[in-house]
Amino acid sequence: MERPGEFELIERYFRPLAGDPGALSLTDDAAVYRPPHGEEVVLKADLVAEGIHFFADDPPRSIASKALRVNLSDLAAKGAVPVGYLLSLALKPDWAEDWIAGFAAGLAADQERFGLTLFGGDTSRASGGTVVSIAALGRIPNGTMVRRNGARAGDAVFVSGTLGDAALGLRVRLGTLDAMPAGGAADHLLDRYLHPQPRVALAPVIRDFATASMDISDGLVGDLGHICRQSRVAARIEAPAVPLSAAARALAASDPTAFETVLTGGDDYEILATVPARRADAFAVAAAEAGVPVTRIGIVADGAPEVIVEGPDGPLRLGRTSHVHF
Amino acid sequence: MERPGEFELIERYFRPLAGDPGALSLTDDAAVYRPPHGEEVVLKADLVAEGIHFFADDPPRSIASKALRVNLSDLAAKGAVPVGYLLSLALKPDWAEDWIAGFAAGLAADQERFGLTLFGGDTSRASGGTVVSIAALGRIPNGTMVRRNGARAGDAVFVSGTLGDAALGLRVRLGTLDAMPAGGAADHLLDRYLHPQPRVALAPVIRDFATASMDISDGLVGDLGHICRQSRVAARIEAPAVPLSAAARALAASDPTAFETVLTGGDDYEILATVPARRADAFAVAAAEAGVPVTRIGIVADGAPEVIVEGPDGPLRLGRTSHVHF
Repeated sequence: MERPGEFELIERYFRPLAGDPGALSLTDDAAVYRPPHGEEVVLKADLVAEGIHFFADDPPRSIASKALRVNLSDLAAKGAVPVGYLLSLALKPDWAEDWIAGFAAGLAADQERFGLTLFGGDTSRASGGTVVSIAALGRIPNGTMVRRNGARAGDAVFVSGTLGDAALGLRVRLGTLDAMPAGGAADHLLDRYLHPQPRVALAPVIRDFATASMDISDGLVGDLGHICRQSRVAARIEAPAVPLSAAARALAASDPTAFETVLTGGDDYEILATVPARRADAFAVAAAEAGVPVTRIGIVADGAPEVIVEGPDGPLRLGRTSHVHF
Repeated sequence: MERPGEFELIERYFRPLAGDPGALSLTDDAAVYRPPHGEEVVLKADLVAEGIHFFADDPPRSIASKALRVNLSDLAAKGAVPVGYLLSLALKPDWAEDWIAGFAAGLAADQERFGLTLFGGDTSRASGGTVVSIAALGRIPNGTMVRRNGARAGDAVFVSGTLGDAALGLRVRLGTLDAMPAGGAADHLLDRYLHPQPRVALAPVIRDFATASMDISDGLVGDLGHICRQSRVAARIEAPAVPLSAAARALAASDPTAFETVLTGGDDYEILATVPARRADAFAVAAAEAGVPVTRIGIVADGAPEVIVEGPDGPLRLGRTSHVHF
């Protein structure tokens, strides 16, 4: 069966995703966007590559979701509301039309769910594996973007959701755990790896409360280290306070390497935020009202940029501090 | 020799390119941009892939230039002023640091030349050949973006520069011409293929005069066809009026397929614009004052969307109308 050309792909699969008037139905060479009065634009680009960030046989819907959501997660951590995105798709030589159909369906579902639309992009061939690059566009009231550099000594350290599930899911997939989980627990971890849940609903709460914020994509310890360096502070985490899913808790009990994966594995896409101590309780309430559970896991302190994880028997020594996709 | 990791690459090669305050020196998760009062944002993303848009042994400076300039060409054709860009770089497994150094040097030179800076992005590995995706950001007075859909019967059709050089340069490289050019002529054509010249200086003139505009990336006839379809008009081109470089003119005289390449080959990155006939002379003067030569090559007419190329012996029949990168 002959595969469609670039124009047919745009017509069939991508034009229906371009709902914003500024996207000009993808009939022009560029898109146009004017932020509402008093707001500015937040920009983020991130790519996912076959064989690096996803497996060739992952469902195309899931690949589309992951490519989009890793960007939405960043916008949320900065306090920005998603608006739209540009998609650059470099397809491997043996791409098939039904893969594109599934990929576009994944984008459509997430657009609906997170309230944004396709603004434009480019589809081309790649000489090797498929590469999906997304540049996401958000908006935010002028001057209110939450940075990494605002954490102050005494601030409480919070994370959303549970940590480590995605990194453990990858270990399930790769078979590198001593005791492999099964049934619902395995499904939960695999799903967290395949389908990040960007905390878009938390964005306005982050803007109101956080002194510093970022999403956890390379592991809690490494990413909190980024906040410490940019804010010129230290941080102390209480290991027992780190929120775990039931599946991760069971693994951590049976495999001593699992908890290290929780702390340093990648792909959580949960939000890591520092909040003034006097506002910590109000932050947790506001987050819960937005539908996102958050947990206080530690404190910011004066001192050289450093992250200490206090375990039951004193500070933990970690073999590495951060997941490296590179 | 060990290769640097992602953080070292950013620190050494990309942070120096991030001059705009909104890029936050690439120390945060996203960038922020506020267009000047009365202006809006123009967005364009385009990728170049190894083995598709460039050769593996092309100089990395040239690959960087091409990746950036294909986007700047679109912004110029829409009448927008370049502001910045996001870079997503998926590197093939055997990438080398000196390739990155050359690539960054190419970006630095073009930033200086065209007046924009790096706002952010992502560096990762690819499983196959290198893929460079750029999302460019421009600005334009509200509501003034020049579309494809404004051409009216009677408008003059203009192009900037000379056409076909890049597509002929590719044929020189591939050895598909009957009589191969040599010396300065070959150098000229090869350079036009490797180094597109986006007509950034023409943007304000396009905004002032053009009823429709786009850059020629897939060949004159195919791209003028896009304007005709979006504007619901026909167009007639006078073949002898199409501006050729001395090198292209010599080839067209010796190889009957060369002129077809001029009309339908890709990678010109010249501007194709329609201008009301009564303003045609003033447009040419304003373009020349901006330093960009333009040539009147035809006229817009009522009728079904169609591009007719009038040769000395009547309308030309073209084997294909457009270059396909896909």
